[in-house]
Amino acid sequence: MIRERIDERDDDEVRRQVAELKPADVADLIEQLGEDDTRKLVEIEGAELPAEALAELEDGARDTVIDALSTEQLAEAVAELDTDEAAFVLEDMGEKDRAEVLAEMPIADRLALKAALEYDDETAGRIMQRDVFAAPGYWTVGQILDRLRSVERLPETFYDVYVVDPGYKIIGLVPLSKFIKAKRDQIVQELCTPEPIVIDAKMDQEEVAYLFEKYNLISAPVVDDSKRLVGMVTVDDVVEIVREEINEDMLALAGIEEDNAINMPIRKVARSRFVWLLVNLGTAILASFIIGLFDATIQQMVALAILMPIVASMGGNAGTQTMTVAVRNLSTRTLTGATAVRAVWKETAVSVINGAAFAVLMGVAAGLWYAGLVGQPRAEATALGSVLAAAMIINMLCAGLAGILIPLGLQRAGQDPAVSSAVFVTTVTDVVGFFAFLGLAATFLVN
Amino acid sequence: MIRERIDERDDDEVRRQVAELKPADVADLIEQLGEDDTRKLVEIEGAELPAEALAELEDGARDTVIDALSTEQLAEAVAELDTDEAAFVLEDMGEKDRAEVLAEMPIADRLALKAALEYDDETAGRIMQRDVFAAPGYWTVGQILDRLRSVERLPETFYDVYVVDPGYKIIGLVPLSKFIKAKRDQIVQELCTPEPIVIDAKMDQEEVAYLFEKYNLISAPVVDDSKRLVGMVTVDDVVEIVREEINEDMLALAGIEEDNAINMPIRKVARSRFVWLLVNLGTAILASFIIGLFDATIQQMVALAILMPIVASMGGNAGTQTMTVAVRNLSTRTLTGATAVRAVWKETAVSVINGAAFAVLMGVAAGLWYAGLVGQPRAEATALGSVLAAAMIINMLCAGLAGILIPLGLQRAGQDPAVSSAVFVTTVTDVVGFFAFLGLAATFLVN
Repeated sequence: MIRERIDERDDDEVRRQVAELKPADVADLIEQLGEDDTRKLVEIEGAELPAEALAELEDGARDTVIDALSTEQLAEAVAELDTDEAAFVLEDMGEKDRAEVLAEMPIADRLALKAALEYDDETAGRIMQRDVFAAPGYWTVGQILDRLRSVERLPETFYDVYVVDPGYKIIGLVPLSKFIKAKRDQIVQELCTPEPIVIDAKMDQEEVAYLFEKYNLISAPVVDDSKRLVGMVTVDDVVEIVREEINEDMLALAGIEEDNAINMPIRKVARSRFVWLLVNLGTAILASFIIGLFDATIQQMVALAILMPIVASMGGNAGTQTMTVAVRNLSTRTLTGATAVRAVWKETAVSVINGAAFAVLMGVAAGLWYAGLVGQPRAEATALGSVLAAAMIINMLCAGLAGILIPLGLQRAGQDPAVSSAVFVTTVTDVVGFFAFLGLAATFLVN
Repeated sequence: MIRERIDERDDDEVRRQVAELKPADVADLIEQLGEDDTRKLVEIEGAELPAEALAELEDGARDTVIDALSTEQLAEAVAELDTDEAAFVLEDMGEKDRAEVLAEMPIADRLALKAALEYDDETAGRIMQRDVFAAPGYWTVGQILDRLRSVERLPETFYDVYVVDPGYKIIGLVPLSKFIKAKRDQIVQELCTPEPIVIDAKMDQEEVAYLFEKYNLISAPVVDDSKRLVGMVTVDDVVEIVREEINEDMLALAGIEEDNAINMPIRKVARSRFVWLLVNLGTAILASFIIGLFDATIQQMVALAILMPIVASMGGNAGTQTMTVAVRNLSTRTLTGATAVRAVWKETAVSVINGAAFAVLMGVAAGLWYAGLVGQPRAEATALGSVLAAAMIINMLCAGLAGILIPLGLQRAGQDPAVSSAVFVTTVTDVVGFFAFLGLAATFLVN
């Protein structure tokens, strides 16, 4: 409906309707609009467009909006945002455009933003909010309350009073709900949670998310190298990091390096998927090469060609199951030390159990098929069934071991197990599957 | 180190060391201990064991601890927890054990907990905290501050003052950081955020998480059917839901229905994976059946058996990429209405582009191999390369379409696309892959 109003350029009505929406809903609206309508909407709204919506948009749509806004309008919008959101909006812009926007901003915002952008991407320094409220430990609750009511530059929302020493080092923190219940003459230092979790500005954001989750934090103070308070990270950023992180793992396992956002151009999507498909082509060719070694065997017994994908595919599936669990547990850090050893042993046991089950199942089924439908002598059918069963159990055991050892090994080697485990595991299950089945067949069935 | 102290039953030292840990670290410690050491630790600590650690433990380890605690000790620990955490600890216990624990608890806690357990699992009612602080709209900030300082039963931490009308219906809410900055004589209703997000107690927890993420909420009031305030949900629960939800999607795509926690017994893990492997065996047998239709063709030209896994495997990988992106976008609700149509079109385009690229690549490679290494006449090699290329492009196009249409269709049909998409997509890519390649070969290459 609003799309029609935009098309008709019923500007007043569009402005009225957009004004009623929360920023996140404006972002949703823009994501649903095409590029042309987005540009029209930006023209209509101009600086009226809620700044927070910019931070909520996904990459493709945000690029369109940024492109449609004038430098002044963009500078105004960015200045309205918290430093972490502002940095997030600016980080993907070109060097020159970013400098132009920064130049248009008020000096205080500009300096804060420049400082934020100096921290590496995906570190605490980048996701932190720089405006914090801190009070000296010897102040009373009443003094702090009075100060809070009079001071100008405060973060829009905060959840703890940070208590610092004269060197601006963190002594402790007081959750607002505790602070608010305290008497006015209470010394704030006495209210402090002892040994609060403090975050180093250079800490990786995944580490930050891990601490937040583990200790159920809502906000945490961020300190620089000299342990001075420089900002705070709040939990709303953490929810996004957690989602992003697992999302990345999940996409990486399927061979997608870059999040294929809805608005990403077709050519970019195709390219981002091509590389992984190419790597997998290597695996597939390797598997073909193994099969090629046994072409004479297959020619003598075409049943092998019919059954061989079953061995490879069951191994592939078993390997994927194990690998996915391993990658998840590595990323939640539940797979360390003694637990890792236990997990390897457990996966071995599970592989042997399920391998044996499917070996019996398919061995018998293949034997019956070969004797019945294909009409071969019983002894040969039994031999084929046995070879299939043996290959199945060998491949599912290798699949289980590969599924746990490859991610563990990649992690040890400092690689992201989510990114490359799948290729290695598939290679193992394909190569072992075809080699075991055809190799055993060549040895025992065909002469 | 602490494990050795536990083994030696150096009780005082164990108690001293555990007392220094935060609850989440105690939970980590217990997860690293085996079952025997956990029992010893519970014996040593008894009721000293921090109650919050119980809520942080993963299922297997928690069962051990609950089993090792006496009913009285457990009741005492549960009573210390917030209602949502207490319900979480009790929900997996047997009916009888749970009743015994409830009977040992103070009456107020017991009633709150029983009410919480009456809401369905995975709803807002189950994850909400029942103690909330609400104030009438006509009160002043000063009145509320005085009340907060005197009232006994308050939630341990809270982030907003909920403002209600005389019927206990939500008028609005005031973030503590805004409340704390207000003057004492300010009427609280005038501070309210208008139209706050209010959660229905029966709302599914994934819906709750969605709202929290979308609107960057820290806490939200929960209301019953008659719109009366009954509790609040806080963001720390949401982080866990988000993680759990994507985790489930990711594991489901790999064919794991139940989270295979580190402490789950081997037999249970094997069983939980068996079903999926069995379903996939069906797919693999279907693929074999297709190959079986062309046994005479393969016998005449073994090169087909060597090359056919490449077609199926490339289709499988392309399908998995598309499907994973589709499942992710469905679960973040970015794949709706107009966007879905655009996504289908885009995936078709991407499949055609990459399909064509790999068709050319593999068509040429297979032709060269067949003419060179295998030593067949050039015309036949060209024909084989063309057939492979055609099969490749057909299968990759079908893979792309299956990868997007199957998850969309399952979602429309009210199924969870993460759970069953993979089997259907693999079936399509295997069947189409083998059928297209062998069928074209039978028609054009072999007579």
